[in-house]
Amino acid sequence: MPKYLLRLAFVGSRYAGWQYQPDQATVEAELKQVLAKLYPEGGVTIQGASRTDAGVHALDLCAAVTVPETPPIPPNGLQHAITNMLPASVTLHSLEVVPAEFNVHGNRGKAYCYLLNRGKFSPFLHPYTWHQPELNHWDAMEEAGKAFVGEHDFLAFTVGFERQNRENSVRTIYSLSFQDWGDIVGITICGNGFLYRMVRRIVGFLVAVGNGRLSPVMARELLLHGPKQSIQFNTAPSRGLFLVRTFFEEDPERFQITTPPFMADLNLELG
Amino acid sequence: MPKYLLRLAFVGSRYAGWQYQPDQATVEAELKQVLAKLYPEGGVTIQGASRTDAGVHALDLCAAVTVPETPPIPPNGLQHAITNMLPASVTLHSLEVVPAEFNVHGNRGKAYCYLLNRGKFSPFLHPYTWHQPELNHWDAMEEAGKAFVGEHDFLAFTVGFERQNRENSVRTIYSLSFQDWGDIVGITICGNGFLYRMVRRIVGFLVAVGNGRLSPVMARELLLHGPKQSIQFNTAPSRGLFLVRTFFEEDPERFQITTPPFMADLNLELG
Repeated sequence: MPKYLLRLAFVGSRYAGWQYQPDQATVEAELKQVLAKLYPEGGVTIQGASRTDAGVHALDLCAAVTVPETPPIPPNGLQHAITNMLPASVTLHSLEVVPAEFNVHGNRGKAYCYLLNRGKFSPFLHPYTWHQPELNHWDAMEEAGKAFVGEHDFLAFTVGFERQNRENSVRTIYSLSFQDWGDIVGITICGNGFLYRMVRRIVGFLVAVGNGRLSPVMARELLLHGPKQSIQFNTAPSRGLFLVRTFFEEDPERFQITTPPFMADLNLELG
Repeated sequence: MPKYLLRLAFVGSRYAGWQYQPDQATVEAELKQVLAKLYPEGGVTIQGASRTDAGVHALDLCAAVTVPETPPIPPNGLQHAITNMLPASVTLHSLEVVPAEFNVHGNRGKAYCYLLNRGKFSPFLHPYTWHQPELNHWDAMEEAGKAFVGEHDFLAFTVGFERQNRENSVRTIYSLSFQDWGDIVGITICGNGFLYRMVRRIVGFLVAVGNGRLSPVMARELLLHGPKQSIQFNTAPSRGLFLVRTFFEEDPERFQITTPPFMADLNLELG
């Protein structure tokens, strides 16, 4: 059975995340529907590398797809057909033949970018940003950001962990960097894996520091001792979050982002 | 009765245009609902300067609003209350006291900007652009654009004109200019008034020229002799169109646009 690695981009606001759920609009359901038309006899399997929360956007959601031998569709033709049949809010960037033993969960890590708007509120960029016009403690935010890099227990930066029945909440963050595009600011986090809502919780914490409500030293406090009643902060809304890269061969430590992810792949020249 | 000029921006994709229609989501309906809460005794009137088609965006939709004397709300308080009560897809830019005789239809003209994406398809900019990756006849497009400037009969560039029972289809276009932002291209048209779908029809024509399907000389042909069976072109989709300015005091001939309208009011610095 041919196996492919698909890399997709999608506007998350229209979906309850990537992962298939009955009676919900999900990106996996869109892909499933397209593949069911191309292979009406069935026999398709899809495995996503990430779930993504409802409303989160993606530039590089990776999925391993196996398809039956018949009808025989060459990779180029398959890529073309899927691209044309997906709705405008989902794009297939690439489709690559992979060996049968390829495991999409064997990725080396992921990069997420979160966009804040510290300028005027924009209804046009509202779907892609969190409006934070009073990020006046920028140095403190950068200071706090450093605390997250490395191997830590991120229990204070997830929700519903017990319900998920996970083994442990230790993850490694390779890098956390800030991008200054003027009114739009990016926070990019590369790591080997992420707990449920982890990026949005970290961004929520950083914004509380940027607003002067929390001190940067509280980051280490939370990472060392877990959640604390005395240190409260909001989880950042899903609409500012983009899954920007899933790493297989590339080195996550060398990842850099150059334009706000809603402009990715476009060559835009502003005055 | 106090009278105000309101200038609003909105994401058109969520609305069936500005103008109130029963059982439809419209921007006027949103404003009406907010004002009904602020003035529960009624007595509010709203008059918009433009209708805008379903799906068209606006940076500067002007509306004249009269409100009753009671409850007494100072202009600042009113602006603040409306801003906070409108949904995220609509923003109130300004609220200005105007004399009772002010007529919102007495504007000197309007500027529309249409965005084309000649780069890679982007699901993130799809709501704001028309993807046209093969605009290879750029000089011909610019040449064709010149034909529209001045006073002309735009019957070939509207639809359903007879149904609208209008007096005449003559309008004046003050300027038609092209903006090159790299992959994103703008076509900005200032005029004293616009027929139903006129900007989208002109853009559809220009794109047919840019794609090499029509010759630029056909613009003059259509403006002189009206619609022709032999010269067919698509109306551009509404999602690329932005009403960018309504002119009262300013000079429409001096209007210039510097950033793609979905980035208006934001200060964005890209590498």
